[in-house]
Order: sequence, then C-alpha cells, then structure tokens
Amino acid sequence: MTPTEDPQELDRADPAGHIAAAAEAYRNWGRWGEDDVVGTLNFIDDAKRRTAAGLVQDGLVVSLAQSFDMDGPQKGWRRRTNPVHTMLDTGTDAERGAQGFPHGIGGADDVIAMPLQCSTQWDGLGHIFDRGFAWNGRRAGDVVTSDGDLVTGIEHTADRLVSRGVLLDLGAFLRPETGEIEDGYAITAAELDACIAAQGPTSGVGRGDIVLVRTGRLARARREGWGDYAGGPSAGLSFTTAGWLHRSEIAAIATDTWGFEVRPNEFDAAFQPLHQVVIPNMGLTVGEMWDLDRLADACRERGRWEFLLTAATIPITGAVGSPVNPLAIL
Amino acid sequence: MTPTEDPQELDRADPAGHIAAAAEAYRNWGRWGEDDVVGTLNFIDDAKRRTAAGLVQDGLVVSLAQSFDMDGPQKGWRRRTNPVHTMLDTGTDAERGAQGFPHGIGGADDVIAMPLQCSTQWDGLGHIFDRGFAWNGRRAGDVVTSDGDLVTGIEHTADRLVSRGVLLDLGAFLRPETGEIEDGYAITAAELDACIAAQGPTSGVGRGDIVLVRTGRLARARREGWGDYAGGPSAGLSFTTAGWLHRSEIAAIATDTWGFEVRPNEFDAAFQPLHQVVIPNMGLTVGEMWDLDRLADACRERGRWEFLLTAATIPITGAVGSPVNPLAIL
Amino acid sequence: MTPTEDPQELDRADPAGHIAAAAEAYRNWGRWGEDDVVGTLNFIDDAKRRTAAGLVQDGLVVSLAQSFDMDGPQKGWRRRTNPVHTMLDTGTDAERGAQGFPHGIGGADDVIAMPLQCSTQWDGLGHIFDRGFAWNGRRAGDVVTSDGDLVTGIEHTADRLVSRGVLLDLGAFLRPETGEIEDGYAITAAELDACIAAQGPTSGVGRGDIVLVRTGRLARARREGWGDYAGGPSAGLSFTTAGWLHRSEIAAIATDTWGFEVRPNEFDAAFQPLHQVVIPNMGLTVGEMWDLDRLADACRERGRWEFLLTAATIPITGAVGSPVNPLAIL
Amino acid sequence: MTPTEDPQELDRADPAGHIAAAAEAYRNWGRWGEDDVVGTLNFIDDAKRRTAAGLVQDGLVVSLAQSFDMDGPQKGWRRRTNPVHTMLDTGTDAERGAQGFPHGIGGADDVIAMPLQCSTQWDGLGHIFDRGFAWNGRRAGDVVTSDGDLVTGIEHTADRLVSRGVLLDLGAFLRPETGEIEDGYAITAAELDACIAAQGPTSGVGRGDIVLVRTGRLARARREGWGDYAGGPSAGLSFTTAGWLHRSEIAAIATDTWGFEVRPNEFDAAFQPLHQVVIPNMGLTVGEMWDLDRLADACRERGRWEFLLTAATIPITGAVGSPVNPLAIL
Repeated sequence: MTPTEDPQELDRADPAGHIAAAAEAYRNWGRWGEDDVVGTLNFIDDAKRRTAAGLVQDGLVVSLAQSFDMDGPQKGWRRRTNPVHTMLDTGTDAERGAQGFPHGIGGADDVIAMPLQCSTQWDGLGHIFDRGFAWNGRRAGDVVTSDGDLVTGIEHTADRLVSRGVLLDLGAFLRPETGEIEDGYAITAAELDACIAAQGPTSGVGRGDIVLVRTGRLARARREGWGDYAGGPSAGLSFTTAGWLHRSEIAAIATDTWGFEVRPNEFDAAFQPLHQVVIPNMGLTVGEMWDLDRLADACRERGRWEFLLTAATIPITGAVGSPVNPLAIL
Repeated sequence: MTPTEDPQELDRADPAGHIAAAAEAYRNWGRWGEDDVVGTLNFIDDAKRRTAAGLVQDGLVVSLAQSFDMDGPQKGWRRRTNPVHTMLDTGTDAERGAQGFPHGIGGADDVIAMPLQCSTQWDGLGHIFDRGFAWNGRRAGDVVTSDGDLVTGIEHTADRLVSRGVLLDLGAFLRPETGEIEDGYAITAAELDACIAAQGPTSGVGRGDIVLVRTGRLARARREGWGDYAGGPSAGLSFTTAGWLHRSEIAAIATDTWGFEVRPNEFDAAFQPLHQVVIPNMGLTVGEMWDLDRLADACRERGRWEFLLTAATIPITGAVGSPVNPLAIL
Repeated sequence: MTPTEDPQELDRADPAGHIAAAAEAYRNWGRWGEDDVVGTLNFIDDAKRRTAAGLVQDGLVVSLAQSFDMDGPQKGWRRRTNPVHTMLDTGTDAERGAQGFPHGIGGADDVIAMPLQCSTQWDGLGHIFDRGFAWNGRRAGDVVTSDGDLVTGIEHTADRLVSRGVLLDLGAFLRPETGEIEDGYAITAAELDACIAAQGPTSGVGRGDIVLVRTGRLARARREGWGDYAGGPSAGLSFTTAGWLHRSEIAAIATDTWGFEVRPNEFDAAFQPLHQVVIPNMGLTVGEMWDLDRLADACRERGRWEFLLTAATIPITGAVGSPVNPLAIL
Repeated sequence: MTPTEDPQELDRADPAGHIAAAAEAYRNWGRWGEDDVVGTLNFIDDAKRRTAAGLVQDGLVVSLAQSFDMDGPQKGWRRRTNPVHTMLDTGTDAERGAQGFPHGIGGADDVIAMPLQCSTQWDGLGHIFDRGFAWNGRRAGDVVTSDGDLVTGIEHTADRLVSRGVLLDLGAFLRPETGEIEDGYAITAAELDACIAAQGPTSGVGRGDIVLVRTGRLARARREGWGDYAGGPSAGLSFTTAGWLHRSEIAAIATDTWGFEVRPNEFDAAFQPLHQVVIPNMGLTVGEMWDLDRLADACRERGRWEFLLTAATIPITGAVGSPVNPLAIL
C-alpha cells in the first residue's frame, strides 16, 4: 500500500494496512545513528536557535500552559487523574506559631502527585509503540519497563526544546467566524499548506521548527466546560498528514487538543493511528493540551506567526513524557 | 538597629533583631501596588526581555536542572522526599500484547509524586513568612492554607521568568584551584562585587536580571555523594547581602546549593534568616539546587557571563514553588 | 434550647442553635480524663470483647469493605479522589527477565495514593471540629496541623476496634419490599428502636457496641452506578438521633452511606450537623461507606443480628481517619 | 536433587538447583483447582475459625502493626519509600474560620501515598514469581501487569485472614538472655519444632494456622535505630524450612523481620530463595515487618501461645500486597 494524503482514500476498515504503509514510508530509524534517543529534535541546531532568538521583537512572553490542578479535564481513563496538590506546611500554621521555627520565620511546602500526561505536556519517544517496537527500532520491552524509559527517557530532551515556533491557527483559517473547528474534523496536509499561505511568510514551516496547530477545541472547552475534552471527539490532524510531518522536517508539533490527531480517528476501529506512525517510527516529539488562544491573538495583532519558543521538559529520569510550561517569546 | 553588610558586625545572639532591621530596610511592600503577587519579578519588562534575547550569540542551550528521581538529595526532612516516578503502562506490557489496544499500537504512561521543593526549584512568594506575614504585608493565614497559596500561587509567574541571566562563579573566583567554596563560608556583598569586577563587564548586575551564584557545592556533592547536601552545611550568601540584593533590583536569584544562604546560618540559633528578609519582605523569587557547573564552563570558555535565561515555572495552581528546568541560551 | 428527638420540631433556619444545644447536652468532654484520645471507644472493655468473641457460632467471615480502586464513588470534592494504585514491578517484566534478580526469582511491588476518606473508612476524632474545638475541648489548631493529628491520631485506635457488632437493617425494616430507603429520609431514634424490636433480642444495643446501620444506599449505587453517592442525597441518621447515640453508650457507628447522616441535611443551609455534635463533642468514632449488604443477608438467614466485629484501623501516624476492611465474624 | 532440611547440606553455589528441587517437592499447583487464587488460605475453614474464636479468654487485643509514617525503615530500595501522609484540611484552618463551612463546623481530611510493602504487610500471591511463573502455574505476565494483579489480587483475601494464630518466640527460645537472634542466623525446621515443644501444647501448629515467628530483630531496631532493617542482615527462616512450611499445612506465616527468611540468604549469590519456593509454588501468604514484641510478653505471661488472629487486608483491587494491622485477641 502507498500512503495517501487524501482522507477520502483511506479504507476505514484497514487501519493496520495504512499504519504499516505510513510507518514504512516515513520511518526515520537509524537516521541519526543507532544510539539516537531524541529523534526529530536533532533537526534543531545552534543556527536554528540563533535564528529563533532573533525573532524576538517585542519582548512579549506568552505562556502556553493550562493550569495544573484538580479542575482539569481528566476523568480517570487509564488512571489519568488531574493533579493533586497538597500542602506539607501552611501559612495558617505559620501564623499560629505552630511550626517550631525560631525568630518568627514560617514556611510553606507542598507536594504534587500527577500523571505526566494529565495537562499541557510533551509526549516523549517512549510514549507510543508500533507492533512491539519503540523509536529507532528497539523492542518496546527493552525500552520501557516498570522502572521507566531506560533508553529514551524525557531527561534526554532537557536542553533540546528551544527553537523557532510557528503558530498555524487552523481554527481561524477554516472557521473565521468562530475560530473553532467542529469535532471529528480531520485537518489535511493541503489545509496546513493553505493556512500557511493565508497567514503569510512568517508562518512558513521548515527543518527544526516547532509547529503549533490551534483548532479552537480548548477555547470551546473553556466556554462550555471540559465535557469529553480528554479523549472525546475533537478536530485534529488527519492520519494522512504523516507525510507532511515527515517531509517538512519539523522538530516537534503541538496542539490545543487532548490527542493531537482527529477524534474519532479516521478508521472504524482504531486508536490514535497517527501517533503510532509519528512517535515510534518518525521519532517526532508531540505536544498536547497546549493553550494557544492568547498566542493566536498576539500573532494576529502583529501579523507575525513566528517566535522564539522555549518549552523545557522537566528532566524526570525515565519519564515517557513531561508536563511543560511552553513560552512563546515574540 | 541598622542593617550591616559586614558579617563581622552581626550579633550572633540576636537573629531576631537583625532580621527585623533588614526587613524594615529592604521591604518592598506596596511598591507595585496593594494587589501585587509577583514582587521583584516586576523588574523584568519587555525591554529587558528584548535585551536578553539579544544576548544569544551561539545558540547553545545549557539546562540548569538536576535530575528528578529517587537518587536525589532528600532524606525526608519535613516530609521532603525524592521524586517517585511510577509507570501506568509499560513497553513490556505493550510488547506482550496485553494492553487491549487495536492495530498493534502500544503505550506507556507515567505518574510523578514529589515535593515541589525536592530538586531544582523556584521558591514562590508564599514559601516563607516573616512573623506571620507574607509578601506585600498579607497575613500568612490569608495567603497559604491547606488549599494552597490562594493569593501568590506560583501560577502567577507562568510568563514571568524570562530575562537576562548573569552567572557569578564565586566558586572559581574565591577558590580558583578547586572551584568549590568550603561549607559555612558566607559570601558577602563585597565579594559579589569583586567577582563581577573580576569576571568583567558581561557580568554586571542590574534591574531585572536573574543572578545565578555558583558555589561549587553541587560539584562536590556529585563527586562525594549527596551526604548532607539537603539541609546540611554549605557555602551560601551571607545574611548581610540583603542590602545588595535590594539595591541591585534584581528580579530573582538562584544558587547551586540547597538553601541559597550560608549554612550553618550566621546566628547561634537560627533558620534561614535571609529567606525571612528577602522572600516575604523584599518579594524576591529564589531558586535553589540549580546545576550551574556546565554553564560555568561555557561562560568561562567564552569570557561571557550573560545570556538569555528562561526558567518557566509549571503553573500548579496554588503552589508555593515549582520544579523548573532553567535554560541558559548563550 | 433543649435538644429534640422529633425531626418535625427542628427549626430549619437555625442549625447553629440546634447544634449548640445538642453539643451541650451530649458532650462527653472530660468523661475519660483530660488526656483521653479515643472517646467512646473507651466503652469497649475486655469483658465486652470476651462477650463478642463468644458470639461466633458459624465461623463465617463477612468483609464489610468496598473495593479500593479507581472505580470508586469519588469525584474530586475537596480533592477526594479515588485510590490510585500503581505498580513498581510487574509480572510482565519478571517473565521477560528484565528485573536483574538471580536464579529466576521475579517480583511485583506496588504503591497506593489515596485520601483516607475515599472508601470504607473510620472517621477519627480529629476529623471534625465544632466552632474551633476538637474532641475533649482542645483547640482545633492544637490538634490537627499540616503535620497531622498531633493528639488524637488514628494510631491511638490501633487495638480498639474489636467489639460486639450489631446490624440494624433499617432498609429492610422501613422498606421491606426493596430494602432501600429513599434519599433524604431521616432515620429517627424511634425508628432505630422499632427496628431493634422488630429484629429481636440479638439486635439489642448497649454500651460498647459497634452499631451498623444499613440504609440500602450502597445497594442502589451498585445497581444504578455511583451517581452522587459521594456527597449527594441519601437516607441517613436524623440530626435528632444524637440523644439516642449518646444514651446508648455505643462505642462506634457505621453506615453504608457516604456521610452517615441524612442528606440533604435537615436545615436550610447546613453541612453535616450531626457530625459536628457527635465527633468533637461526644467523641464518637464514625464509619462510612461500609458494605453491609452481604452481612444483612447472612443475619437475616440466621435471624441473628449480632456478631464479633473487628475493624482495625491502619495506624497511620497522625491520620484523622483510616481505610478499613471490617470483618463481621458470625 | 532432593530437598534437604539441614542447612549444612546446602550447596551455596547452587541456589537454582535447590530452588528447583524444593519448588518441585512442595508445589501446590492445582491442589485447590485450576482457578484458585488464595493458595494455602484455603486451609482455613469455618470450623477453624470457630475454634479460633473460642481461644479468646481475656478479651485482650494486641495490635501487631508498626507505625505507618515517615520514620519507618525504608531507604528507597526499588522505590520503596516510607509512607507520606499529608493533610487536605487542618484544624488550624478550621479554627481560623477559613474553610467556608456553615454553622461553625470544621473538618480535616488527609491523604496517604505509600508502597504497599513499606511497613507491616501481607505479601499477596502475585508478589513473587518463579522462573516466569506465578501461583498455580500461571504465566507471570498473565497475572501481574502495569494494571496490577489481574488474577490473584489481594482483594480476593478480604474475608480470609481470620484464624488461630500461634506465636513461636524463637528469639526467646534460642537466645533466652536477650530474646534477640543475631543477624544471619537461619532458623531450621528442627528449631521450630523444638520451640513448639518448649513453649508447650498451646503452640502446636497445624492445618489452617497462621504462624508468627518472632526473632527479636524489630526489638533491636527499636533500640538501635533502623539501620539496615529494610533489606539488610537479619535472622530469619532457613531455606530448608520449606518442607516444614509445606507439611504443617499452615495458612500463612509472618515474622518481625523485613524479609521473613534469613539474610544474607544461604547461597553465595541469591535473593530471597525461600520466597521463590513458598509464594508462587506453595501458594503461601507471607507477612513481614509485624510487631510481635508485646504479643510475646502477653503470651509468656499467660503461658498461652495461641489466640484468635484477625489480619484483614485492605482490598485494593489488583494489589500484590496490603498494609495490615493484625490483631491478636487473647
């Protein structure tokens, strides 16, 4: 089978066939050597980062993180809960003088317990496997055990996620009146290109870029309540964009949705087939649940869709993902 | 009492008196309005960030985070444990086909449970109180309850921690042969200035800067084992640097030590008296347990001690601190 | 005001007045000395336990615990989540030989993170306060700080919860056809007595007994789904049963509902007013979310409503409650 | 190879051979049917429990649980931490009136995060595997995945752990002066029998009993500090007791040590070889870190070593073990 870029040509009954074809066509195993652990993040080099820093004109910082708290979208699917934040010491105790410290000092400490996939996040390369294999052709069980990701843990990306960011506001492009694409809408490669053309030259996408795709899904969840934001229907990238993601040589991609790709997926019985192609095969780092709404406003006002993006992972040893507070600096 | 900048003049028996004098002298309450929640981070403005972005010459990124894992320095003091990272799904399970997903996709998810003060971190303004009061003159019990920091939670800093960073390598300056200052050594304001002078003009410190002070303490812990790194003896800033920290109008400061200030503290019976002055009174955001060793090498090689620093907090609602992966971009 | 035992006489607009009156009338402060930390559990003595052991006739054990897992009733109210159980080591890893152990041994370990109030539980005496006061007249802030319950922690009950148990199946008594009392129904003292009379002499209630009241609420939740089981409407004890609970000199009481007392509560604007009387004032240990359905069947079959009950708390130092697997031994 | 009951006959270089021989000789797979999930707990029947209840003479309850808190023995081996107990609400907050509840009610809630193997515990049948196999001959990976123990989870024991308990105070028997056996001492089957003979008829051991073996290791840890209590040297059962454990048809066994069997183990390079025989092969439920000191006193005073033992697991779905507060009722 040859990969298609036209969703109409997908055989809804054959996810396995389409996945195998795309995996074969867009696989980057070995491209950066046998020992590689960061995949397409290799596309970002010093020159790219210099260019990215040069994009800062205003000095405006926009945080692209959602809040990390109990009021998040998670409902417990596969034990994904919302973050539970508890205090080890409080101001109430300090004010009452109950802490046992000298000379009037008081303190507050706290603890977080959370799935690394609960809110604004990066999916690491150990997050998804294809038929038992992980990134670069390793056996899944050689990579991620109960001890964590022994090979491609998120700590390897600690100094990698700085580059030129480009926002593609597909929500505004496809639905100018509302800025929000309806659930189940599969964004195609052609639409990505058309959005770039419409937004103009500052949104051109190329090697080493981190591409941010706004669908408007989060904006709707903010207005209507979470509902099924976590795992339910949403606009997102079509399975058929795998080729675009591959040939553009982007370093990473992130969306304002739970799952990056369109949901329900474009096959009759499927689960995140585009993930299965791009993470273990292409080695692409994927961001989810980013908040792109204020950034969209800032870009539109300026007519400028590129910026310095720093989106540092927390280097949790062996993690298959990381919470992140991405900063767009315009 | 008038604050002194000479450690020899401290009355070791009177921490309360010295704290009260310094608190009075260097208090910034009301400086940014009654409602302010970020303190000296207000010193960072768009112009500052533009300048900071302009410092990027090489495109080199240095991560200043320690690893977040069970092999950290914590020993349980006040229930501060090391991070516990566990898996919800693994590659072993995926490879064995036990996950119940279609078309050969497999996945790995994970969970973290950790004190926000366990490793490389920012102390938020709700982390320390002075005689029952928190930043900007609020009652401690009005600010931080069991529900978290209701006023100055770390989420308010989500887009704030981007500025010019300056590394002051006091370890190399004071102990050129080893690069490591001995435990209990109190770094003075005069020494900070002398280090700046020695390092040259790229290390000048002024309004809105984020100052990083390297003592070499972490380098020694790496070589010798953690020992008492968390809470035990260490070089650090003298209590008498409070005036320097105030008049320099820096936005934030961070060190490679557990506790930022010298330990044991410079009074007979005391606990972190400089914290008590600078966090609730001055409104200074303080970073601890940063890894400054590779950055020191990079700066020394270049003879350049300034850089773009992005050190985004994870916006955990109501948190009094945040784990952070600070990135120095040179 | 004099406490009433007739719900019709309650002034729905004056919860505070009724609470104050009942607290005054039924307060046990000082009854077991100034230093007492277990309240009505003092009613259980060796003779009582001997009697209780003598009730075992069949050797049948019925567990009264619900399952502790993610499929529980909690929805996040006040950060009460369902238990999150994760694995540190798995059989999949062991079978694959990835654990690094010698001679073919493999192991599985696991971790639990859960609110102590999430499922079948005992409320400790530090769980509820009345106008700033805890059990035995102590200031609430002297008893429970961020460090936990420093005085009446659940560990003090470690060897206390063995006694004669008595099941009062109010569900079957009041609603013989369904065995389930409708939401919002307030069970009165008169009904408790009538149920005892109907069930016969084995259900007489007296000093040191642990009384189990079945409403049928859990049975319905099992059939219909959790819905608002946790915190929503339910049958339960009327506020007016406080006198009955006091004069019966029972050691503890437990129900098959989330909150022991009727919900909505019997005042216009109120929250668990009976708790406010019985826990901090009477010193009564209260169990919630117990599973009494199989026990009800076993008792009905035998025409015998008394049994040996062991319901050991897990002695978590400073806890204000404990998960429990209560065992009725008939 | 034939299993030996004489430690002198063990070939220290061949743990695998001895394990295979003992596993073969003492394997109970199929004894209670193909679907069995509780192993030797099947030896406890109603008659046994009636007998056990009949042993209660004084009505004295002794809790056999250690404290569950940060001051426990764990040091982080395989991410086994001590319990972390945190508050969701406190008395300090309640007293200050900051909780938002009506009519003066205040509350405290709390959370626990802990490994199920951190303190006084039962090892479930899914805790240990032998060459890739779990209890009753199932593949380890079919039993315990990242989702937990799908087959023999601890919830299946919820109503099982009530029986006649027998204390064998080997510490007092072998070391009458101190009551504490030195580290590395392997208790043999002959010594178990001799202890029973010395203690007299109330300590006879037979089908369905739960045997408690006191070594004095915990008493020493209490006196000297934890040191290497968790995982370090200790007296314990010899590998050669497997036959005794099998033919006695006991339901379960527990000790006052971290690891039940002697440590260091009796082979040159080994890890818990007796576990490997008795848990997955024999189907024996094993308790560890029990506190048997007060019970030993109570038994010695009475010259009576048998009692009703209730040691209910918390039915955490899919758990491979459970914290427990065992109660001996004399």
